[in-house]
Amino acid sequence: MTVTPLRPTLLAIMVEDQVRAALQEDLGRAGDITTYATIAPSLMAEARVNTRQEGIVAGMELARTAFRLVDPAVVFDAHMEDGDRVKPGDALITVNGPARSVLSAERVALNFLMHLSGIATLTARYAAEIAHTPAKVTCTRKTLPGLRALAKYAVRLGGASNHRYGLDDAVLIKDNHIAVSGGVASAVRAARAYCGHLVKIEVEVDGLDQMREALTASPDVILLDNMGPERLREAVEINRLAAGLSPEAYRNAPNRVKLEASGNVDLTTIKAIAESGIDYISTSKITMAAPTLDVGLDVVTR
Amino acid sequence: MTVTPLRPTLLAIMVEDQVRAALQEDLGRAGDITTYATIAPSLMAEARVNTRQEGIVAGMELARTAFRLVDPAVVFDAHMEDGDRVKPGDALITVNGPARSVLSAERVALNFLMHLSGIATLTARYAAEIAHTPAKVTCTRKTLPGLRALAKYAVRLGGASNHRYGLDDAVLIKDNHIAVSGGVASAVRAARAYCGHLVKIEVEVDGLDQMREALTASPDVILLDNMGPERLREAVEINRLAAGLSPEAYRNAPNRVKLEASGNVDLTTIKAIAESGIDYISTSKITMAAPTLDVGLDVVTR
Amino acid sequence: MTVTPLRPTLLAIMVEDQVRAALQEDLGRAGDITTYATIAPSLMAEARVNTRQEGIVAGMELARTAFRLVDPAVVFDAHMEDGDRVKPGDALITVNGPARSVLSAERVALNFLMHLSGIATLTARYAAEIAHTPAKVTCTRKTLPGLRALAKYAVRLGGASNHRYGLDDAVLIKDNHIAVSGGVASAVRAARAYCGHLVKIEVEVDGLDQMREALTASPDVILLDNMGPERLREAVEINRLAAGLSPEAYRNAPNRVKLEASGNVDLTTIKAIAESGIDYISTSKITMAAPTLDVGLDVVTR
Amino acid sequence: MTVTPLRPTLLAIMVEDQVRAALQEDLGRAGDITTYATIAPSLMAEARVNTRQEGIVAGMELARTAFRLVDPAVVFDAHMEDGDRVKPGDALITVNGPARSVLSAERVALNFLMHLSGIATLTARYAAEIAHTPAKVTCTRKTLPGLRALAKYAVRLGGASNHRYGLDDAVLIKDNHIAVSGGVASAVRAARAYCGHLVKIEVEVDGLDQMREALTASPDVILLDNMGPERLREAVEINRLAAGLSPEAYRNAPNRVKLEASGNVDLTTIKAIAESGIDYISTSKITMAAPTLDVGLDVVTR
Amino acid sequence: MTVTPLRPTLLAIMVEDQVRAALQEDLGRAGDITTYATIAPSLMAEARVNTRQEGIVAGMELARTAFRLVDPAVVFDAHMEDGDRVKPGDALITVNGPARSVLSAERVALNFLMHLSGIATLTARYAAEIAHTPAKVTCTRKTLPGLRALAKYAVRLGGASNHRYGLDDAVLIKDNHIAVSGGVASAVRAARAYCGHLVKIEVEVDGLDQMREALTASPDVILLDNMGPERLREAVEINRLAAGLSPEAYRNAPNRVKLEASGNVDLTTIKAIAESGIDYISTSKITMAAPTLDVGLDVVTR
Amino acid sequence: MTVTPLRPTLLAIMVEDQVRAALQEDLGRAGDITTYATIAPSLMAEARVNTRQEGIVAGMELARTAFRLVDPAVVFDAHMEDGDRVKPGDALITVNGPARSVLSAERVALNFLMHLSGIATLTARYAAEIAHTPAKVTCTRKTLPGLRALAKYAVRLGGASNHRYGLDDAVLIKDNHIAVSGGVASAVRAARAYCGHLVKIEVEVDGLDQMREALTASPDVILLDNMGPERLREAVEINRLAAGLSPEAYRNAPNRVKLEASGNVDLTTIKAIAESGIDYISTSKITMAAPTLDVGLDVVTR
Repeated sequence: MTVTPLRPTLLAIMVEDQVRAALQEDLGRAGDITTYATIAPSLMAEARVNTRQEGIVAGMELARTAFRLVDPAVVFDAHMEDGDRVKPGDALITVNGPARSVLSAERVALNFLMHLSGIATLTARYAAEIAHTPAKVTCTRKTLPGLRALAKYAVRLGGASNHRYGLDDAVLIKDNHIAVSGGVASAVRAARAYCGHLVKIEVEVDGLDQMREALTASPDVILLDNMGPERLREAVEINRLAAGLSPEAYRNAPNRVKLEASGNVDLTTIKAIAESGIDYISTSKITMAAPTLDVGLDVVTR
Repeated sequence: MTVTPLRPTLLAIMVEDQVRAALQEDLGRAGDITTYATIAPSLMAEARVNTRQEGIVAGMELARTAFRLVDPAVVFDAHMEDGDRVKPGDALITVNGPARSVLSAERVALNFLMHLSGIATLTARYAAEIAHTPAKVTCTRKTLPGLRALAKYAVRLGGASNHRYGLDDAVLIKDNHIAVSGGVASAVRAARAYCGHLVKIEVEVDGLDQMREALTASPDVILLDNMGPERLREAVEINRLAAGLSPEAYRNAPNRVKLEASGNVDLTTIKAIAESGIDYISTSKITMAAPTLDVGLDVVTR
Repeated sequence: MTVTPLRPTLLAIMVEDQVRAALQEDLGRAGDITTYATIAPSLMAEARVNTRQEGIVAGMELARTAFRLVDPAVVFDAHMEDGDRVKPGDALITVNGPARSVLSAERVALNFLMHLSGIATLTARYAAEIAHTPAKVTCTRKTLPGLRALAKYAVRLGGASNHRYGLDDAVLIKDNHIAVSGGVASAVRAARAYCGHLVKIEVEVDGLDQMREALTASPDVILLDNMGPERLREAVEINRLAAGLSPEAYRNAPNRVKLEASGNVDLTTIKAIAESGIDYISTSKITMAAPTLDVGLDVVTR
Repeated sequence: MTVTPLRPTLLAIMVEDQVRAALQEDLGRAGDITTYATIAPSLMAEARVNTRQEGIVAGMELARTAFRLVDPAVVFDAHMEDGDRVKPGDALITVNGPARSVLSAERVALNFLMHLSGIATLTARYAAEIAHTPAKVTCTRKTLPGLRALAKYAVRLGGASNHRYGLDDAVLIKDNHIAVSGGVASAVRAARAYCGHLVKIEVEVDGLDQMREALTASPDVILLDNMGPERLREAVEINRLAAGLSPEAYRNAPNRVKLEASGNVDLTTIKAIAESGIDYISTSKITMAAPTLDVGLDVVTR
Repeated sequence: MTVTPLRPTLLAIMVEDQVRAALQEDLGRAGDITTYATIAPSLMAEARVNTRQEGIVAGMELARTAFRLVDPAVVFDAHMEDGDRVKPGDALITVNGPARSVLSAERVALNFLMHLSGIATLTARYAAEIAHTPAKVTCTRKTLPGLRALAKYAVRLGGASNHRYGLDDAVLIKDNHIAVSGGVASAVRAARAYCGHLVKIEVEVDGLDQMREALTASPDVILLDNMGPERLREAVEINRLAAGLSPEAYRNAPNRVKLEASGNVDLTTIKAIAESGIDYISTSKITMAAPTLDVGLDVVTR
Repeated sequence: MTVTPLRPTLLAIMVEDQVRAALQEDLGRAGDITTYATIAPSLMAEARVNTRQEGIVAGMELARTAFRLVDPAVVFDAHMEDGDRVKPGDALITVNGPARSVLSAERVALNFLMHLSGIATLTARYAAEIAHTPAKVTCTRKTLPGLRALAKYAVRLGGASNHRYGLDDAVLIKDNHIAVSGGVASAVRAARAYCGHLVKIEVEVDGLDQMREALTASPDVILLDNMGPERLREAVEINRLAAGLSPEAYRNAPNRVKLEASGNVDLTTIKAIAESGIDYISTSKITMAAPTLDVGLDVVTR
């Protein structure tokens, strides 16, 4: 029985500071001098935000906030919701209000929409490649500084799952920690002693022997870095045997150790990785440099 | 006689708030629980930041600030300067200090370095394509929200020139402004009446007739959007004749109207665009989704 | 084999903003007019911070930061570390510097020390009551607004374990969620579908039948609210049987469902609750109104 | 003729930043994942905030602001006003709106209400003990960092009077100042020379001789630290004689020196202290660790 | 053909932070204790803001924001717009709402209005002195810290033109730059090499020889510091001849080098300076110490 | 016996945010492009800050902070202290460091120095006019938004006394409060009932009858608005008789009602006002539009 997850809420209180900062970055000290110079304060305008590419929309609340912060008098009509799939030419938004305000908010609204929709769209392409397997795509902490929470939100809209949001919400013991502190299993045990009962513990291993050692300490997740599909398949089998589960029971066992693969993940390699039977595939490609979704604003009347 | 431009200074006061915010985004409320759980407070570590790809380095001051803000006791040795070209395996930085601090700052330092070096590196590829012409690559206001000043800094290190930083430091009259306000030439004149003597005025035109109209109002720059190399060549000739200059004099005339091309710019098209004789080629490709430069940190001792 | 957890690091970057705000709250617009009026700028002073009660020290880094922010010229010598047990009359700190600076920073440094040490000290009393059982005391999200991360840090120093830091780092399905959304088991399944692989899921139940329903969905933790020791003992037995574990194996099984008790927890009731065999006992008493540890500053010379 | 003081206004501009920070502390980076996982975005809920103890309500505007900042669509109905006395089971607030929003704001709204009502309630108990005397309870600068203005507001609602809000709004010369600067009387004179005509001057004395010296410099208030009721009574008599007033005239003389007692103040000692005839009794007990008033939120429909 | 410039928009997003900070500066920690003490919360008041002097109004949006931030229930009616000329006794604003709110916001609203209207009014006097010439008054970067953007806005309302807003929106090479870097012409060439195509370049010269050298590098503007009308006239002639323009053509030539005069500018000297034929006259007198416009608030009913 | 007041300390923590904001206001997004374009990063410079007018220095700590925030490598040598009287040509400061840093910080450092020294200098002129009387000059809440604490600091250095810093540190009942609330004496009594024992109460009266009514309520200070020297003299006599003091005793009586005069105060009128015998003369002239002290920076070597 699969349960379809509900969608998250992007509260204004969680994005308003960021949109305000982006507007102030763009308005600078003198404001939008081009509109002040060329458009009389009394002129009104209606404009439409259209997409010029196919993809997944993300960032509608940010666009809404951008227009509202510039001028509460601008009426914002959303024709799509975050997570919707759009095709070239689809109208996302109609805005209507003082022409100066519409044009002053345009770029910031579009920059958020283009960036987040780009992430959601690229993520959806990765997710589609492995939709025939139980594996899920997941993100990393390699994100653009200051934009992490928004990126993780867009990743989720694209159909992938979220990894840690930061250093503090789960343990991930990596090669550098082990290099400094000692062995894999002792690190996992130290983490269990340190953490409260609501913190999960993941440990990165660089080979199957290290994985076997890690399993003795029962982490929640093992991260298998830079292994090819063959060795990942072998890792899955090791994990299944350690848990003493049949192949059928293994898939849905709620509390067994989960396996995550990383390294050398792209649209050409992800299918084979997923078919190895691992549970999660993490990649920074979807957050660090996703091509934008091309979205533009056109004045339609007046 | 060509003058080589000096390099800019990225003052700590201009980046510290941003690095602090990125660190707080990563540290969350509980801090780096993995290092607290696995690494004793008294352990020291030396680590090296290496690049794994060829490219242009950008963001050293941000990395330095990340380590300093986490712990002033970390010693930071830079082996490269912003703007240097590096090859795979080159060491950029050595850090030495409390192991917890080194690892807590790692991700934020690397995220800045990877992103900015990625922009500089991609920009350099665009610039190299047109190095045989007098044209220059320039950026736009399509930038990631909150990261614009850093992106423009990286664009400059990659060998391109900066466009407007915001809505307030120059006038750029676009199609939407003209749609709302009236004709091209009157918009340029309105801008001249509005602006002080230290503000430049650029106007976007969608065809050669509109360009001729714009020239009657003597803007500082004309933006030619979405024209192919042929029409751009024609535009250059129109501009030269309007200025009454010989082909030789045209190139270096300091105060003539400058021409900028935009639209459909990528690594396969930019050469032909530049060879048309226009002065600037603007593209958002270099700031919105530049692939990162792969950079990693490895603990080397202890 | 028990592993002693390492102690956390309270980075200056995580407390400096808060100490600065507390200093500005105290200094107001005119600053410390009493010292300006009565003490010449050139006078120096040495002062000692002493405790007048027995307890656990917490907040040394906050005190250090308070003196440093008021005046980097003040020398701060710590005689204790966070987590140390002190007895009446023990010296915690000696500060030495300009007399005005020492006195201007005094109150803020002491307010942090008194409050956090008070939390750690009270927590240690709760922990001592149940030290003979494997149960652990844990905190809640009932904390003083703005002081949560510091409170959780002090709770840990007092020998207890941390619960969620916020709404975002783990799922806790409570009666109100179930009232709005439907049944317990379906809520747990919805949470598993929604969350990534590094998020734990806890569910609150108000009786043993609801607990049995919850167990069918395999949450990570079940919160048993307002049950007496008898029913808690029964709950432990239900959990053990559902896991198919012997009494011996139950205690240390790493991945079985954990049980948390809450409600009517105080220093007179906690022992009996812990002896029921549950794993965690949560209480807001240790964070919302812990008596302060009495700490004072006395000028010793000049 | 006694004048009943009016009640203060807690302006939204003075609390909004603090409520926003508390919400962001709780929502973290990913928001309220429990409600996103279990409650559909379209569900509505009505909930009631009830008190489970007797006491004085304080913090209604903070609760209102918490719900408004999370979602302006939540309707907030207040059934009580700050300063009202409530009994167990009384409804304070009904909120009605999107279920996700109601539950996301709950904890922060309650944390403020529980803490401030706890202060007001404890203060009222102190005030009731001395209501038969002209003395008044007053607070100190021993307050929880960042929460001082709110604590002082709650103290006032509990029927006590406010002391200094910070180092800058009045002079309080304490033992450490005198230790560094010289004598009591000269310190008071230095303060008078330094301060403007709208600043009051208080001086702490540790005995009656020092009090007599202080009186020669005519401070506005003398703080008598750690004296028992007998010596306080003696101090009152010294003050009366120095002012040359009859016992009847002394009580209401508007501009005579006021006497404040501090040290060893609790619910068992305050009555005797007040009956000594001093004017003010200051204690940090009411602000540093007041037990919370138990307040909860229950969903009532849907 | 002269084009009348449009007026700028002062967006709430650009002033709200500043008005909030000014209100918090005034309200402090305890708020407006005079109104809380003397005016019941339920009392309403209508008040009028009147000018007591002749001048130019500036700052209406700031006044509106001050009342709105203190209390959204206050109704604000503007009887004037920024840039209007008023005479003594004119009503600028009527506010209507809770009496406490009206009086708590009064001082901040008036302080902004008095200061900005003072700048606009003084600027208008300077502008009037030279209205018979084509020269324009312009401001400088000598502005009160934190108030620059508002000051430049008021300068514009007074009929003058804006100079640079900061160090980053245009180049101004001054004597200190030349002292450090070398010659005038090479500095201009270095600036051209450094800057993008939307940045203007101005250079300060201290004599006519240096001006001639500067002209060889074709800057956009030359700043003539501390020269009397005679030498300015000579400078204009040098500039005209270098451009090869007739006296008639010179005036309106759009792209010729502009001349700016500074130093010893006041209401008695500006006329002669302007009549020399230069284009701009810059002075810090209009921003650093403009006398306020006297504006007051009077309660009219209740 | 007159006591010379000590001088205040302007802590870095109280000015750093403001200097940082002023620097960011000036540096904008691209920084100091003129120095980046014309001065190589490796060049060093020594510069001197000189005054060109006679006056009182104020703001040295702000200048020091400006250079330090731009570059900690700049060495700052102060040749004067705040409050010192300087004459034209005096060197205030020598700075030595990277030439780019010295020039980037120059304008902000000078803007603070010029403005605050201007206030101190003008205040000293007012104070000198009445130095032969016991009256003191005092400031008001009419200050430039955001600059109040600095202005009050400069006023004090100029030899005057400070009035309220805000709405919260003393009561000042003005005509508008009385218009809304009722009579003068009842307002004073309401204030006494509302306020704690460390808050002074001042009331404004518009005539001698209202003054007599006010005296019945024993305020701490009476503000006499817009009365000429004759009526002020009469007011002093009324006050003396009401206090039952001889002319000799009146002057130094510590706890009698103080009298403050305001309205129509300038350098030509203040002497006569002071000679009336009142205690304080308040004026906004010294804070709202004090002419700057002319201070400049010159590079001296390299």
